[in-house]
Amino acid sequence: RVHCLRSRNAVFYVNSFAARTNTCGELRAAHIGQEVTLCGWIQYQRQGLFLVLRDFQGLTQIIIPQDEAHSHVRKLLSNAPVESVVRVTGIVSSRPPGQENLKMPTGDIEVKVETAEVLNFCKKLPFEIKDFIKKSEALRMQYRYLDLRSSQLQHNLRLRSQVVMRMREYLCNHHGFVDVETPTLFKRTPGGAKEFLVPSREVGKFYSLPQSPQQFKQLLMIGGLDRYFQVARCYRDEGSRPDRQPEFTQIDIEMSFVDQAGIQRLIEGLLQYSWPEERGPITTPFPSMTYEEALADYGTDKPDTRFGMKIMDISDTLRRLDIGFVQNVLSYPHSTAKAICIPRGVVKGSTDMNIFFLLILPDGSLKSLLTKFLSEEQQSELIQALNMQVDDVVLLAAGDHKRCSALGSLRLESADLLEAAGMVLRDPAALHFLWVVDFPLFLPKEENPSELESAHHPFTAPHPSDTNLLYSDPTKVRSQHYDLVLNGSEIGGGSIRIHNAEQQRFVLEKVLKEDSEVLSHLLEALEFGAPPHGGIALGLDRLISLIVGSPSIRDVIAFPKSFRGRDLMGNAPDYVTPEELEPYHIHVSWPAAETEAKKN
Amino acid sequence: RVHCLRSRNAVFYVNSFAARTNTCGELRAAHIGQEVTLCGWIQYQRQGLFLVLRDFQGLTQIIIPQDEAHSHVRKLLSNAPVESVVRVTGIVSSRPPGQENLKMPTGDIEVKVETAEVLNFCKKLPFEIKDFIKKSEALRMQYRYLDLRSSQLQHNLRLRSQVVMRMREYLCNHHGFVDVETPTLFKRTPGGAKEFLVPSREVGKFYSLPQSPQQFKQLLMIGGLDRYFQVARCYRDEGSRPDRQPEFTQIDIEMSFVDQAGIQRLIEGLLQYSWPEERGPITTPFPSMTYEEALADYGTDKPDTRFGMKIMDISDTLRRLDIGFVQNVLSYPHSTAKAICIPRGVVKGSTDMNIFFLLILPDGSLKSLLTKFLSEEQQSELIQALNMQVDDVVLLAAGDHKRCSALGSLRLESADLLEAAGMVLRDPAALHFLWVVDFPLFLPKEENPSELESAHHPFTAPHPSDTNLLYSDPTKVRSQHYDLVLNGSEIGGGSIRIHNAEQQRFVLEKVLKEDSEVLSHLLEALEFGAPPHGGIALGLDRLISLIVGSPSIRDVIAFPKSFRGRDLMGNAPDYVTPEELEPYHIHVSWPAAETEAKKN
Repeated sequence: RVHCLRSRNAVFYVNSFAARTNTCGELRAAHIGQEVTLCGWIQYQRQGLFLVLRDFQGLTQIIIPQDEAHSHVRKLLSNAPVESVVRVTGIVSSRPPGQENLKMPTGDIEVKVETAEVLNFCKKLPFEIKDFIKKSEALRMQYRYLDLRSSQLQHNLRLRSQVVMRMREYLCNHHGFVDVETPTLFKRTPGGAKEFLVPSREVGKFYSLPQSPQQFKQLLMIGGLDRYFQVARCYRDEGSRPDRQPEFTQIDIEMSFVDQAGIQRLIEGLLQYSWPEERGPITTPFPSMTYEEALADYGTDKPDTRFGMKIMDISDTLRRLDIGFVQNVLSYPHSTAKAICIPRGVVKGSTDMNIFFLLILPDGSLKSLLTKFLSEEQQSELIQALNMQVDDVVLLAAGDHKRCSALGSLRLESADLLEAAGMVLRDPAALHFLWVVDFPLFLPKEENPSELESAHHPFTAPHPSDTNLLYSDPTKVRSQHYDLVLNGSEIGGGSIRIHNAEQQRFVLEKVLKEDSEVLSHLLEALEFGAPPHGGIALGLDRLISLIVGSPSIRDVIAFPKSFRGRDLMGNAPDYVTPEELEPYHIHVSWPAAETEAKKN
Repeated sequence: RVHCLRSRNAVFYVNSFAARTNTCGELRAAHIGQEVTLCGWIQYQRQGLFLVLRDFQGLTQIIIPQDEAHSHVRKLLSNAPVESVVRVTGIVSSRPPGQENLKMPTGDIEVKVETAEVLNFCKKLPFEIKDFIKKSEALRMQYRYLDLRSSQLQHNLRLRSQVVMRMREYLCNHHGFVDVETPTLFKRTPGGAKEFLVPSREVGKFYSLPQSPQQFKQLLMIGGLDRYFQVARCYRDEGSRPDRQPEFTQIDIEMSFVDQAGIQRLIEGLLQYSWPEERGPITTPFPSMTYEEALADYGTDKPDTRFGMKIMDISDTLRRLDIGFVQNVLSYPHSTAKAICIPRGVVKGSTDMNIFFLLILPDGSLKSLLTKFLSEEQQSELIQALNMQVDDVVLLAAGDHKRCSALGSLRLESADLLEAAGMVLRDPAALHFLWVVDFPLFLPKEENPSELESAHHPFTAPHPSDTNLLYSDPTKVRSQHYDLVLNGSEIGGGSIRIHNAEQQRFVLEKVLKEDSEVLSHLLEALEFGAPPHGGIALGLDRLISLIVGSPSIRDVIAFPKSFRGRDLMGNAPDYVTPEELEPYHIHVSWPAAETEAKKN
């Protein structure tokens, strides 16, 4: 009676300890003649003749007996509404010839019911649980437990569980990593403006929910743990942002005595090992690109390399063309002219133009260049320089070379438009992994460009070749940070960390001008024999959504929040009474109008 | 160059991706002649002659060359303070005859250094990292990263990781459970007075950190997930309580179409599969005891069955003895007299007494009975009834039979005293697992015994034999709750849940008189085809501390909080600025004195 399914390296007894002999996805011709007990939801029921029973694993057709001896069973099953939960016992039989359903894995058989029990009735549903019925997302989130019954969400959550399990096997069983749980009730970190606060019972004191276990994983290395990983819950309060969740999960990894290449090979092996067969295989090592190349060629630090349309530098050509206001733009320091050429691009009804120019002035405004500025000779020169074909469209931008991101966004938008128009640019099966390396260690602050901030975080080590520059010209220092990009989405990032206390203090105090007091425990720890170490974090929600091909991470999270951070099913967050706030010594600052309203 | 260690079912490449060839615990006679590179901490260094290098896996003796060609290496290693991090490369050699160290796994060999590098220096330590040096716990927590280097904490954290990994293999790979992450930002639940609050950006609205994923796991069953597990982070704000942590971890399990026996067999299989070899094997099934038996025989619902000294009911004997004030006590309804007999018990200087009585009066006060009340005949009758031997001590209590817990506590305290005096009562290697079942579903509220509250939680299903009593006499209803006890500690608890919406509503509204509005989403979910389901949660911190034989769960948590809920290393919780509170529309209610002080 014990049936099992074989996965890549494990035997599943999905029916162990349960009141069934088989799942609804399990029965085949080989089971014909067996008595089986199935539990599941009524997917469909027709005139008391048959019904389709569903569970997490599939569908089975159940034949309702029509003879007098089974009239009780027939009545019971005919009266149970769709989505009621039933248990049936019966004999597996072959379907009558010609009635097999090849599309259904259990399509060769049906189960002739002997006894049946309605375990729970279902009242009228707010929507039908069929994959093809489109529901409003708010309704789906309010009745999330019904949406979870869809084959898509069942598949996504099960695949997520399996991928994570394979990752654990690779890290823990194969490479000696230790799964360590780090606290989520910690304290505010410098620049932690996006950290949720948790009031404590000590007046005026708050815990903070960390954005990552960064400090703890470094402290574990200092504690000699050697290899750490954690499927870590992290928190970030960003208010309302589409496709961000206030809590999210990262595969958090740190190891000692390792360099950048070591972490990269580790992660390549991890992804290769855990990659689901349905999307595999993937080849390693992944290609690598410097931050500078990525910005120059793709206008972004997370290039989608599944298609071309790379950014070209045409400053020299344009300088030669001698168009007044273009020259003017190009005369500023660090100014360049760049272009992307959209093959047979038909963008925004510009079909009657062979060449289409866009110019971004230093103030960010756009100007369209017309051919009338150019002689025919100049036009050919430009066409040649851009290697343009008939019907191609060129997008061109000139200005500060750091503003390439505008062209990078236009490149992606153009690809979307081209694909919407029917052109196949990006193979949906393609997996373009890419390491982006050699990031700058510091960037000028947006609000005050004469001050520097960490491009990633203050614990990132400088590039070994640039260590001396740290003390002379920190703006020029590259870091040992690395990002992992898949099909244009950042799925992970990490770095080799600073393990020298003096260097860490210099970065915090002299370069970043931060108050290092709040990190005094970490600075002190670095003085007590900290090993060289580095690590990475993979964004699990995004990674799984890319694997299953879902546009939103909400489709790979069991109970996601809405984009305003609300749980629409349980109605969280919610009001609490002043009495409940009392132990935490806080009260709510109601806006004047509401306070007034409460008084009256 | 790839060395590996074999564990029960996996090959560890502990040196993959790292700048070493071997760990410090790995080298044996078989490696003699090989060139190796080790990384580790200097545990000990003697006169520039040799040093002992330590990493997470062990110790290796390193011989410092004394010839002129290696003077640089000698100088480097002699000057590096203890706990500095070094990398050495050298040749594995056999120790000179007679100098082998049998106590050291690497005691047959030593490594003759060729080249060495100090990767980081260590400043003077606040305490020595040797297991035999006792430190104050506050100091250990402040420098947790140093304490983590101790072999005890290394062992505890690694064993914890391995046990959890084995549990995952059993659940996920062998029995088809799905690892689902549930939210930790949720909302206040009824009676959730111990839930931490998290202010949101919506005025007056708060998230709450749940004490368990109870609601979510039931909703997953309603969502057809069939089998769920999670190593779940949970939160409980209990203020200051010894050996409790504000955040803790439970192995959280739920499955559909299961009964109580199914969950029990699942958990027995889980523990048997994941139990570490060093403490195994364990035999299953575990014995079972009803709540009533447990209270009667052990005076507690989590009996330590490793030793006898069970509670005896001697009401009939005492009634016959006819001692005035005892009779008086026994005349109250529900009054009993109970006793435990401590074999050769020598408690608190009572050596010159053959019998020692303790009586608990209904008001809780103790009274000592002297033999002068009893005739010699009566004394023998009592001695016979209690089956006393010479030197035995009897503790006796009479009063309301529900007050047996006093005798239960005295039984445990007596065992401690006897063991302190050198008697071996509880074999430290013994593992007494016990299911405690048939708990009452409801208990009278302590503050108002005429009202009822759930003995565990309001989702617990009534015992199938007692369902009708729910509507007639709820105080008599037993539940389908089960606790798992190991050596007198509760390590888990769970129940079959109510899956019928009407029954759930009746329990909440009619029996518990709770406002069910806050649970309306769950009540509604039960109406949409909820399958019968049940589950359990194991307290991971306590379980691991019992496995490693540690008295405190702080020894199995990487970064525990102090008993006041503080992180003594990072200084959490901490003050935040009013500006940081602003987005959350709260402010601190400072006590008047402090507000005054701030003004001045």
